[in-house]
Amino acid sequence: MNNVKATWIAADWGATHMRAWAIGISGDVLSYNESNEGMKDLQQDQFEPTLVRLIGNWIGNDKITPVMACGMVGAREGWVETPYQQTPCVPINKNQLTAASTHDSRIQVNLVPGVMQLEPADIMRGEETQIAGFLESDPNYDGIVCLPGTHVKWVKVSEGKIRKFTTFMTGELFSVISLNTLIRHSIDASGWHQPSFEKGLMNGFENPGLIASELFSLRAESILGELDGKSARARLSGLLLGIELHGTQNYWQENPVVFIGSELLTKHYQKALQIVGGNGLSFNVEIATLSGLSSAYKQLHNN
Amino acid sequence: MNNVKATWIAADWGATHMRAWAIGISGDVLSYNESNEGMKDLQQDQFEPTLVRLIGNWIGNDKITPVMACGMVGAREGWVETPYQQTPCVPINKNQLTAASTHDSRIQVNLVPGVMQLEPADIMRGEETQIAGFLESDPNYDGIVCLPGTHVKWVKVSEGKIRKFTTFMTGELFSVISLNTLIRHSIDASGWHQPSFEKGLMNGFENPGLIASELFSLRAESILGELDGKSARARLSGLLLGIELHGTQNYWQENPVVFIGSELLTKHYQKALQIVGGNGLSFNVEIATLSGLSSAYKQLHNN
Repeated sequence: MNNVKATWIAADWGATHMRAWAIGISGDVLSYNESNEGMKDLQQDQFEPTLVRLIGNWIGNDKITPVMACGMVGAREGWVETPYQQTPCVPINKNQLTAASTHDSRIQVNLVPGVMQLEPADIMRGEETQIAGFLESDPNYDGIVCLPGTHVKWVKVSEGKIRKFTTFMTGELFSVISLNTLIRHSIDASGWHQPSFEKGLMNGFENPGLIASELFSLRAESILGELDGKSARARLSGLLLGIELHGTQNYWQENPVVFIGSELLTKHYQKALQIVGGNGLSFNVEIATLSGLSSAYKQLHNN
Repeated sequence: MNNVKATWIAADWGATHMRAWAIGISGDVLSYNESNEGMKDLQQDQFEPTLVRLIGNWIGNDKITPVMACGMVGAREGWVETPYQQTPCVPINKNQLTAASTHDSRIQVNLVPGVMQLEPADIMRGEETQIAGFLESDPNYDGIVCLPGTHVKWVKVSEGKIRKFTTFMTGELFSVISLNTLIRHSIDASGWHQPSFEKGLMNGFENPGLIASELFSLRAESILGELDGKSARARLSGLLLGIELHGTQNYWQENPVVFIGSELLTKHYQKALQIVGGNGLSFNVEIATLSGLSSAYKQLHNN
């Protein structure tokens, strides 16, 4: 695919990863590339050379190729800081895209800004693009979009706008608890046990105040020989998700929910929400990202 | 104090620290020594030489000096594994003290075992000795003993026995959240702001299910310039304590509470409990430890 030339290029550039797609004249994906050169590993002057290395083969010499990028690349520590939009707002507004100047004159880079909420204070970078992409397929959606991950976003959307949102650090909590606390001795790095997941889920949902005690129980049951590492892993995951579903009842109890995230996480969230009495659909995360960046491209270049 | 000779020696040997006291014939403390050679840094054959190095000056050559030790020194990875007592039980029972054999014939070492609870599974090592020490001063106490720390213990005591207990990993959660999550960029290593502590406390106590969202708020408010590092530290502390107090209402709502722990932590716990509608007294942790080990010594040597 080395001689593919892109009409434009889509880039999802997060804190730890960069993914890029060569898009053709009719909007089809011609080629794909990825790297673990995320925002947090790059100095400001390293973004352009990193980008050009990844997409260089897709760029023609006789015209300027637009690059639309979203994610932490637009953070303060990123390539160019893109000022946040403020809720309520459409997820992507062409007047707020931020250009990143380049030495290479063959590309023209625009970054999608994140969205902030003043009260209560909250921020997102990247998820607004996935929401924009989902809204391309369902412009009149009135409900919740939940984006599971390290920092889970619960977002109320209506009339094409992000109305309000709340971020839950559930994924990061899972990570530090399983890697950095004494529970690391009791938990496997992979594996699953669905009944343990569901037990943890109900414990967390019914008694969120017992989180620090439920965590110690994992360790104690493991020491006393009653809990294997796979079950501990599933129960910790269920516990933290149950606590999150307790805290998000005002989002999901009266609204439809759409999950956008990795296949595995989305499956767990859907199942968990169903168990505690809600229900949600899922929407493919890659389609969401590409449709969102495509909407940014069309806003900027089709008028 | 190099020529002090002890009647017996008290040792509190935890995971990260070792503290030893030379006790005289009338029970008074003659000398003190400490080290950061905790259980987790020592191999099995290093315990005796470490002990002898710390207390060697207090041992006479013409008689055997008893050493009474409590804490993680009796864990599976410690000097000698002491089998747990099982609730309900008196905190220290002379028939369950475990001797650690030594090459040095001038000392005779006995370890106080920890206490386990089968359902729900829970364990303690060291706290049972502090509870025994507190009960020396109030043998008929009927209520709650709370021991704040890395792994906080809430313990129901009556008729001289540990009836049931629950461990909360609150201290360890505070540590990993402030050191290993993105909140580390927003939080000072020391300092305090009492109104932020109380705000976090009420947030946690009223809505424990929002923990992962409250954590992200700390970061978001910091990025948006609304929160300094001292306030973030106090609010995180209050948040986690508020969640714990939500989860322990069945302990403290109908019972007197005595806190045994570091002066600073105990002060925060007392204030927090008062704010959410309970109340508690404090008992000096060093007196508790020494009285507990003394009770073990007397049980073993005075009959």
